[in-house]
Amino acid sequence: MVPSRAARSAPPTTIRRLSTYYRVLGALHAEGRANASSRALAQLTGFTAAQVRRDLTYFGTFGKRGVGYAVAPLRRRLAAILGIDRGWRVALIGVGNLGRALLAYQGFGAQGFTVAAAFDNDPRMVGAAVGGQTVLPVERLARAVREQRIDMVVVTVPAAAAQPVVDRAVAAGVRAVLNFAPAKLQVPDHVELAHVDLAVELEYLAYCLSR
Amino acid sequence: MVPSRAARSAPPTTIRRLSTYYRVLGALHAEGRANASSRALAQLTGFTAAQVRRDLTYFGTFGKRGVGYAVAPLRRRLAAILGIDRGWRVALIGVGNLGRALLAYQGFGAQGFTVAAAFDNDPRMVGAAVGGQTVLPVERLARAVREQRIDMVVVTVPAAAAQPVVDRAVAAGVRAVLNFAPAKLQVPDHVELAHVDLAVELEYLAYCLSR
Repeated sequence: MVPSRAARSAPPTTIRRLSTYYRVLGALHAEGRANASSRALAQLTGFTAAQVRRDLTYFGTFGKRGVGYAVAPLRRRLAAILGIDRGWRVALIGVGNLGRALLAYQGFGAQGFTVAAAFDNDPRMVGAAVGGQTVLPVERLARAVREQRIDMVVVTVPAAAAQPVVDRAVAAGVRAVLNFAPAKLQVPDHVELAHVDLAVELEYLAYCLSR
Repeated sequence: MVPSRAARSAPPTTIRRLSTYYRVLGALHAEGRANASSRALAQLTGFTAAQVRRDLTYFGTFGKRGVGYAVAPLRRRLAAILGIDRGWRVALIGVGNLGRALLAYQGFGAQGFTVAAAFDNDPRMVGAAVGGQTVLPVERLARAVREQRIDMVVVTVPAAAAQPVVDRAVAAGVRAVLNFAPAKLQVPDHVELAHVDLAVELEYLAYCLSR
């Protein structure tokens, strides 16, 4: 699918909300609901109905006045827009508590992400079976990325170890990096980078409570 | 500090970027840097210089033309704005892998958050010492929230268990909830709620790679 001009210009915050709509539509679909209004989607996601309509307008005309959105088709369309209707092969680097939590996270598999390899530097971890993966030493990263056709890496190593493992992954051909390490990473322009900072949301709540 | 009119109207995305500026200013401060331009902050955070200036303008006039921002004072001011210059007492509910990863996360303590209690429903976990905390049964939540003067709870339980524990915490007087469970939670209006959906960023990368 070639994205429309509008789709190309949708801001990252809209894309992130699409993920949430997709999740909520999945729950509605599982309940056997055929249609849902923007108000219903707003209530389930916590965004406003106007926001829901504006976000979806970037990608076409989905809703019908008085009927709302058709749950199953909209969900399939969002999966296609998000690119989660195909398989993505992910390598996890760092199998500490957070890495293990992500390996155990049921959401990943359901959304088309397969963790195809896991790496750690700790000799006590190497060779262990974690979440269906035998943990490999980081030295094996380049070879595994090629052999396992890895698309993305999820980085859950300590801050100081993050840039060197990402450099290795990028050199081996990885095209996207999801960084959980509390470190700002450098990647070349052709590589996509996203960062989850676990403290940001806690600080946001502190801000709300302080006012 | 009474927030200015402008501060009150700063959007959530600006507040979340303040957390990132705060982190980067901490690193610059540790390196002994006295001043930093908006361009330098942009480079270190990945936002644009215009964005940096616009975000900070919500809270006052900080920078000096040709000199940039004074690192230490701006950092202190951001800490005050974010409300992380005082202590916040946090309870963790759910000490599986993700909960343990958060307990071990060094960032929390440094930013004024003290994990003062940890809870789990699993009888094998109750009584265990995890990250300096003795894990308590969830039945003890209300009493611990009062006795330990808990301000916020961090929820890292499975989706189905999330709403009941949050109801318990809210009834006991907790004012903010940070939810990591893949579930949409309901809280009363006077309680602040933030949600970290670990799949959203992975899906955002899938979207970027699909285009």
